[in-house]
Amino acid sequence: MLPTTDSQQHPLHLRQQIRDGVLTGPTTGLAPDYVQANLMILPQALADEFLLFCQRNPKPCPLIYVSEPGQTLLEAVGQGLDIRTDVPRYRVWRHGQLHAEVDDVTPYWRDDLVSFLIGCSFSFEHALLAYGLSLRQIDEGVNVPMYKTNIPTQPTTRLSGPMVVSMRPFVAADAIRAIQITSRFPAVHGAPVHLGDPALIGIQDLNQPDYGSAVTVHPDEIPVFWACGVTPQAVIETVQPAFSITHAPGHMLITDLLNTQLATL
Amino acid sequence: MLPTTDSQQHPLHLRQQIRDGVLTGPTTGLAPDYVQANLMILPQALADEFLLFCQRNPKPCPLIYVSEPGQTLLEAVGQGLDIRTDVPRYRVWRHGQLHAEVDDVTPYWRDDLVSFLIGCSFSFEHALLAYGLSLRQIDEGVNVPMYKTNIPTQPTTRLSGPMVVSMRPFVAADAIRAIQITSRFPAVHGAPVHLGDPALIGIQDLNQPDYGSAVTVHPDEIPVFWACGVTPQAVIETVQPAFSITHAPGHMLITDLLNTQLATL
Repeated sequence: MLPTTDSQQHPLHLRQQIRDGVLTGPTTGLAPDYVQANLMILPQALADEFLLFCQRNPKPCPLIYVSEPGQTLLEAVGQGLDIRTDVPRYRVWRHGQLHAEVDDVTPYWRDDLVSFLIGCSFSFEHALLAYGLSLRQIDEGVNVPMYKTNIPTQPTTRLSGPMVVSMRPFVAADAIRAIQITSRFPAVHGAPVHLGDPALIGIQDLNQPDYGSAVTVHPDEIPVFWACGVTPQAVIETVQPAFSITHAPGHMLITDLLNTQLATL
Repeated sequence: MLPTTDSQQHPLHLRQQIRDGVLTGPTTGLAPDYVQANLMILPQALADEFLLFCQRNPKPCPLIYVSEPGQTLLEAVGQGLDIRTDVPRYRVWRHGQLHAEVDDVTPYWRDDLVSFLIGCSFSFEHALLAYGLSLRQIDEGVNVPMYKTNIPTQPTTRLSGPMVVSMRPFVAADAIRAIQITSRFPAVHGAPVHLGDPALIGIQDLNQPDYGSAVTVHPDEIPVFWACGVTPQAVIETVQPAFSITHAPGHMLITDLLNTQLATL
């Protein structure tokens, strides 16, 4: 897969449209050759510890980039990328409660805020599709189903919470291939953390995801579960820090990095 | 894992003991750093076609070595290795029926016989154990259970038959790791061909294997199925060629090749 030459699908163009309020929806399928990222913004007082949390939990929280405090222009991951305006939908959190959903966090910006870009399954989904596998949530036109599990993250002093997973159903041969392919992408969650019986990781009903939408699982299919970049939002709900900003699920930051650059081999 | 320095476990010594009739049992666990091989011996008239069959079915029939017609000394895979005497138990087949089990096929030898050495799961099991996974059939002291499936092999003009698989149960996380590890060993069957519901590949009862012994599968475990080097024996039963020789299941040829030499990475 070569990078698209369609200028309409170049990340620079898409970020400009997002900044201008023209693009406000989910980013799935946009600029498919390029890395999209989950976003977590925290005050510096908690950011150092969140960095440690990510180090201890590389499967749900694989770090693509970490900014300096107060840094708004992230040129290292995107030409002219402004982290305050270039995500189509943000969530502002206060004390673990959703305070606002906005398309521009400039009014909330503070000089002590640190931005964490966390790998997103869109990158490995691109590789799965390139190998000819079908993804049910794409076929059914919905967001991937995500579930809180009973798998604990490795905590730090102040940060803890359940691992969130995304689920994609496959027949067995495709599940095996998907494990091989995603193993090549540790920077975007890597290999699955579970497959088969959902109850073994504390999921009572596949039809009732905690985030995203339920998808069909056929009788001959096995649900396969990957660690998910929404895990930090479950940590926020658990730990209830005074202030934080995240992306809204499905509304990712589109970077200039190529998915192929994340493959180990 | 470095090659063992125990001279008693050197393949050369073990083959001598086998040739002398001192070692006559299964070879599992012997010289664990070295490649053991499945054996298929066919008259040249059918051997060319069996070579094509292996090319079309690399997962059950990954070729380690193919001899010249009539060649008995296989120095390329073992010092002084005599294919007529160095396997602890042979099966001699006539018209698809088991004619004899013997520990020396010198009386049956013909100048038109071609030997095929086919990779064996012992090599990848060595890697699984090295990574700390447990193998149930080893824990329970039996041969790995093997099953005829409804997965057809890719036939040639005269050769066809069902794929035979071996089964090892794992909890999900270990199953995922086992898929990653065995993917590195395409020369010894590589990644699994199925996992989960046995009925989907035509296995009615896990407790009734066609070869080897049944093992315990716990409720939280998933059966994982690998293509098996016993597949050619199922082909013999299906096609009923006039004459052939194989190893007896579990009684493999111990070569001087190192398992590590078979890993792709």
